Amino acid sequence: MKRRTVVLAYSGGLDTSVAIRWLTDRGWDVAALLVDVGQGADAKSAAARAQRIGASRIIVKDLRKIFVQEFILPALQAHAVYEGRYYLATALSRPLIARALVEAAHQVKATAVAHGCTGKGNDQVRFEVGVRALDPSLEIVAPVREWEFKSREDELAYARRQRLPLEASAGKLYSIDRNLWGVSIEGGDLEDPWSAPPESAFLMTRAPKRQGSETIRVQFARGVPVAINGQRQELMALIERLSRLGGAWGIGRSDLVENRLVGIKSREVYEAPAAAILHAAHRDLESLVLDRALWHYKEGLAHDYARLVYDGLWFTPLKVALDAFIRETQQVVTGEVRVELRPGQAVCVGRKSPHSLYRHELATYSHGDQYDQSLAKGFITIWGMPYVGRGKHGRKS
Amino acid sequence: MKRRTVVLAYSGGLDTSVAIRWLTDRGWDVAALLVDVGQGADAKSAAARAQRIGASRIIVKDLRKIFVQEFILPALQAHAVYEGRYYLATALSRPLIARALVEAAHQVKATAVAHGCTGKGNDQVRFEVGVRALDPSLEIVAPVREWEFKSREDELAYARRQRLPLEASAGKLYSIDRNLWGVSIEGGDLEDPWSAPPESAFLMTRAPKRQGSETIRVQFARGVPVAINGQRQELMALIERLSRLGGAWGIGRSDLVENRLVGIKSREVYEAPAAAILHAAHRDLESLVLDRALWHYKEGLAHDYARLVYDGLWFTPLKVALDAFIRETQQVVTGEVRVELRPGQAVCVGRKSPHSLYRHELATYSHGDQYDQSLAKGFITIWGMPYVGRGKHGRKS
Amino acid sequence: MKRRTVVLAYSGGLDTSVAIRWLTDRGWDVAALLVDVGQGADAKSAAARAQRIGASRIIVKDLRKIFVQEFILPALQAHAVYEGRYYLATALSRPLIARALVEAAHQVKATAVAHGCTGKGNDQVRFEVGVRALDPSLEIVAPVREWEFKSREDELAYARRQRLPLEASAGKLYSIDRNLWGVSIEGGDLEDPWSAPPESAFLMTRAPKRQGSETIRVQFARGVPVAINGQRQELMALIERLSRLGGAWGIGRSDLVENRLVGIKSREVYEAPAAAILHAAHRDLESLVLDRALWHYKEGLAHDYARLVYDGLWFTPLKVALDAFIRETQQVVTGEVRVELRPGQAVCVGRKSPHSLYRHELATYSHGDQYDQSLAKGFITIWGMPYVGRGKHGRKS
Amino acid sequence: MKRRTVVLAYSGGLDTSVAIRWLTDRGWDVAALLVDVGQGADAKSAAARAQRIGASRIIVKDLRKIFVQEFILPALQAHAVYEGRYYLATALSRPLIARALVEAAHQVKATAVAHGCTGKGNDQVRFEVGVRALDPSLEIVAPVREWEFKSREDELAYARRQRLPLEASAGKLYSIDRNLWGVSIEGGDLEDPWSAPPESAFLMTRAPKRQGSETIRVQFARGVPVAINGQRQELMALIERLSRLGGAWGIGRSDLVENRLVGIKSREVYEAPAAAILHAAHRDLESLVLDRALWHYKEGLAHDYARLVYDGLWFTPLKVALDAFIRETQQVVTGEVRVELRPGQAVCVGRKSPHSLYRHELATYSHGDQYDQSLAKGFITIWGMPYVGRGKHGRKS
Repeated sequence: MKRRTVVLAYSGGLDTSVAIRWLTDRGWDVAALLVDVGQGADAKSAAARAQRIGASRIIVKDLRKIFVQEFILPALQAHAVYEGRYYLATALSRPLIARALVEAAHQVKATAVAHGCTGKGNDQVRFEVGVRALDPSLEIVAPVREWEFKSREDELAYARRQRLPLEASAGKLYSIDRNLWGVSIEGGDLEDPWSAPPESAFLMTRAPKRQGSETIRVQFARGVPVAINGQRQELMALIERLSRLGGAWGIGRSDLVENRLVGIKSREVYEAPAAAILHAAHRDLESLVLDRALWHYKEGLAHDYARLVYDGLWFTPLKVALDAFIRETQQVVTGEVRVELRPGQAVCVGRKSPHSLYRHELATYSHGDQYDQSLAKGFITIWGMPYVGRGKHGRKS
Repeated sequence: MKRRTVVLAYSGGLDTSVAIRWLTDRGWDVAALLVDVGQGADAKSAAARAQRIGASRIIVKDLRKIFVQEFILPALQAHAVYEGRYYLATALSRPLIARALVEAAHQVKATAVAHGCTGKGNDQVRFEVGVRALDPSLEIVAPVREWEFKSREDELAYARRQRLPLEASAGKLYSIDRNLWGVSIEGGDLEDPWSAPPESAFLMTRAPKRQGSETIRVQFARGVPVAINGQRQELMALIERLSRLGGAWGIGRSDLVENRLVGIKSREVYEAPAAAILHAAHRDLESLVLDRALWHYKEGLAHDYARLVYDGLWFTPLKVALDAFIRETQQVVTGEVRVELRPGQAVCVGRKSPHSLYRHELATYSHGDQYDQSLAKGFITIWGMPYVGRGKHGRKS
Repeated sequence: MKRRTVVLAYSGGLDTSVAIRWLTDRGWDVAALLVDVGQGADAKSAAARAQRIGASRIIVKDLRKIFVQEFILPALQAHAVYEGRYYLATALSRPLIARALVEAAHQVKATAVAHGCTGKGNDQVRFEVGVRALDPSLEIVAPVREWEFKSREDELAYARRQRLPLEASAGKLYSIDRNLWGVSIEGGDLEDPWSAPPESAFLMTRAPKRQGSETIRVQFARGVPVAINGQRQELMALIERLSRLGGAWGIGRSDLVENRLVGIKSREVYEAPAAAILHAAHRDLESLVLDRALWHYKEGLAHDYARLVYDGLWFTPLKVALDAFIRETQQVVTGEVRVELRPGQAVCVGRKSPHSLYRHELATYSHGDQYDQSLAKGFITIWGMPYVGRGKHGRKS
Repeated sequence: MKRRTVVLAYSGGLDTSVAIRWLTDRGWDVAALLVDVGQGADAKSAAARAQRIGASRIIVKDLRKIFVQEFILPALQAHAVYEGRYYLATALSRPLIARALVEAAHQVKATAVAHGCTGKGNDQVRFEVGVRALDPSLEIVAPVREWEFKSREDELAYARRQRLPLEASAGKLYSIDRNLWGVSIEGGDLEDPWSAPPESAFLMTRAPKRQGSETIRVQFARGVPVAINGQRQELMALIERLSRLGGAWGIGRSDLVENRLVGIKSREVYEAPAAAILHAAHRDLESLVLDRALWHYKEGLAHDYARLVYDGLWFTPLKVALDAFIRETQQVVTGEVRVELRPGQAVCVGRKSPHSLYRHELATYSHGDQYDQSLAKGFITIWGMPYVGRGKHGRKS
């Protein structure tokens, strides 16, 4: 009898390594899919380990450019930041990997896909909603939700008993997810929201102890970051460069108690140096080229967009419609922003654009003219009309 | 014939000093109202100058405590930050001064009030909408909107010709408004949005060049900051202390191109060290004690609240209704936040509360149980139900 | 061994009757709770049936006044209408019944509560989220979700085999839930969204075929309906009267494809004559006494409030905070509305209030004055300032 | 010396007729622009009158198709209804006429445009913001805001003294604006918001006294109404047909106290039979083909879209971006709706679509299956997780 094939989203870490064995033990033919989204892992050795554990096939896909173009860029333009502090690096990669799983399943004629997420997190939602949107005929297997291990220690012990080849860091303190947009760090002593994250928890950024500052110019064309200090680069390379630059200044760290979609709060630590710089610069440039009504409205949408991404609703009509809105606004987001990199911070200190709506002759206080003055009186009178004589509480009674 | 009396909101600066003379020249009996909102000016010498210029009466009111309790605190609890970067120090003081103007007018039986705002800014709106809400029978005179000077230089020349006693800084580079919540800095070389603000522009903060960091604990009771490092203080004293602490670390600076209510963009520089620290800490504590739905909703209201304050709509029913919403949410905002003061930044690194909704046993990844896992499957299936099979764009077609 | 006690929310209908037997068969001691929310059922005969089927105890509670005061009234003042057409009669009763279940469980020392909802609807969510908010120590049993019947016919056959005493209408075509605020009608031929609901589906309203119209005056005091045609009545009596009046004109029917919380669409038919009249009148009165900013904002909240009620989130901090907002706005909602009852419609044709913000002298076109005219120019110029010269698409490029 | 040319938006009514004379008296060369937006006036006789009064040139443009395609259709798809009851017929025509004014000005090399709006209404804002967005170099003259008449009676007396040829209805009771999307009726006895509008006030609809009903099917393709009862028609013809059909049933009347942009409330009466039918049908179809998240979001945008249209902000980037959002959503809005026309109401009683998201097998209560049931439990548990044990007010304290 032919064994059924499952494509597993394989990260090379402990959970998905154990999952290969767990799945083959249950009769599955396992194809391990390794998607490169810039996590910086060694794909070759990971592939070798997967094979030794029992995967019948290894599929490696470098989707970094697609990740940047189709996932990171729209989220940047939307100013999607979850709960004010999370740039969504992990969340953005999930729908891409879900899509890759579906494509790989079609390619190898698998009837199922599998992921290594627990039942307490957001990622399971992102993978499964994504996969079912794209191909509901695929069965979804979630080994980590089903297996018997009571703890990470149990799981590690099992892996050792089974002599599974593991990466060096399998006994690591934190649960980590990394890609070229940022890192998510959870678990260990971070689970006490009262303790500060130790310096050793961070991967992409150095302790912000350097003095002084460094000023760079980030240039955008129609909403897309295209150059640093006048030097044009492809977006992926540009992000990598800003990650290094920002990382050296300790920029882009967040520490928060976050509301997971699945009804619980968790303490999260993130690093996203390029995201922090690009979000600051892009938003600053928009303050120059978008009018007040649009700017405020778009900031309102930003929260909703972030929530959709966080909640695994990437492949949904609302997200697609919001993209259309955002795209339309980016036509004028061309210009340059001076960003000062300082210890722990990227601060915008100058901005210019051919589409600038800043008009010095209007803004300045050094020259007035009679005309304007009478206009102001009319404006104020009509603006305040509904409240005339209504008192402190806005009602006479 | 008896002269009509006008109460002028007198700051001691050039514009309102000239305004006293301008008003008396036009036949008004001028009562100068000096409201202390923590601007740190020397009220005595200002009063003496007003008298010398021609004010028939000087009224000095120390409204700092009311400013803190009735204006700053609700805005803090609402997380009111305009366009993401302005803590509204000036905007919050305007309705209070408008109310003081109306009260003073009743006291001295004036038929008019006056302010020293130009026709291009937001403050004229805030004063006039406030005054007309409280007593529409009062005439409002806006000398700076009406007089003939073409520039600040003209005005200064006039003041010198008239031998008006001016404060030492009358020839200053920037237009400045200061109170205990922060400073607004405009004009001069800041009017070029591409140039970085020079260090000399700042008043409350020092250049963030200090190394290392300093950790403080800020304690809240029902939404009100009540102690630092366990030491209870009245809110006003606490704000002053945080201003000093934060100022020394260069915390709370903003530099932005802002959308004024009156249809133009302007480049603004702000300092608000205490606001920056308290907003960060209060918001961080809320992330621990408010559930996801409420937290997200309240963040949405925060933008609207900020806009109302900015737009001079303090004494309006919508603001009052939003206050009722906010007040209700503050009952559980009790606890402590560890804040690291670093060069240019206040970063929350720990938080705890008797009302904490963080439950370690739910959040942790180290123990799973079978029960939860099946719940997750149900949740995800129903959560993703509307998108099943709808494809990349959320629609088959 | 002592049997554990469960309190069942008993409606007297087929599902909950069968549930009594199902629960006792599984060893439960069943206390049947009959909550009167104005469903018009015969409590006595229902109680007798419950006892004959096997309930060890019958608890009857008339909570109609609490339903009106604590549930219907706030939702009316919030203008809570789900998806524009559902006045939430059923949804509003659920948290009340959940609360009654918890109270009854405490009273009879039960360790569990039970309801008769299926796994496909919203009511299970409303009951369970409510109960767990109020007392998470209570186990929740959902017989209809667990039992083996494949269809209503199966269930009916079982009931007949077991000789359960059923109400006459047990074989009815539609699934119906009724209370004094309205009726929900589902199932049968209504499940085809293309067929119009037959006249026979309706319970509270007559076919709107009557000619002419009838005008009534509805009077409100601080947001509460207090009188019809000048005759003061308690709110419950007033609602019953409007139900009869409106029902006779066929007012308050809705027919829609609705989005259930649990991810599926369903075709729903509703009747809510009193709700339709009171919502129209209350909203119309608010248009007279609330200013534009508040009115628009409150309409935005109305959608959110409706969604919270629909989604079973009554006992949540966000709902409570929204109530505080709404309550604040109702202080001025005093006045009278003329409502024309016509076939199928309640139309407001006149409104007045001591707090009216309508000022004839401002609104009228018959007298102009020079002053206003110049104000308008100032207002328009500043209002349109951000768009000057920006062309058809709001951007030059 | 050459006289400067002004293009006047000429309606043929009293105000703009007098304006021709007023402008020529002040030295302007007046080109009268008559835009046909379906107002049903006799363009020929209006043109003749304009010429007799003194216009040097008459420009007649039939822009009905553009009005339908570029203005009415997007607003319909956006579900733009101001304050819940105004379908924006007049408001939608204003930016079109503003654009026509600018084009005509360029054509005849005019340096100015003029309109006949008063200083108390919304239309002045819509015209002027539109014109200045499109060509700020054009001067805008607003005779009605400037002239000396104290009332309509004065103006009429002047017109008679000057022997201006007026249309028969010049002495009419109400101020009326009509186009193919609807009529606005103001003034006269309607200015008392307590009196019901008399039957004689209505132009497009008959008193809804007819009995019975008439069912039609309205078909949409990608959001565009394309056929009635299976018979395809161009949109303009389709709207005209629905206007007649609906008008005969008295459908589409509104009576409200409305918040004008310029700070005052006014009592407005509207008729819009085709709009009422098409809005109902389009929204009903969307309830079948859009998922819950999108539907609710879009309804939120609808309010904002309506406000932008009402407030004269058609040619603004925010409106353009919202259009992009809306357009994206219309791809699946294909299908048919059964609409019952009844006295005073259009009621949707059936709907179907190839993109229907209604799945009978999920929605029905007649078949359950074990699987679903356990899913529900998981969903509810996670959905209610944040509120567990938090009590009536959502907080323990």
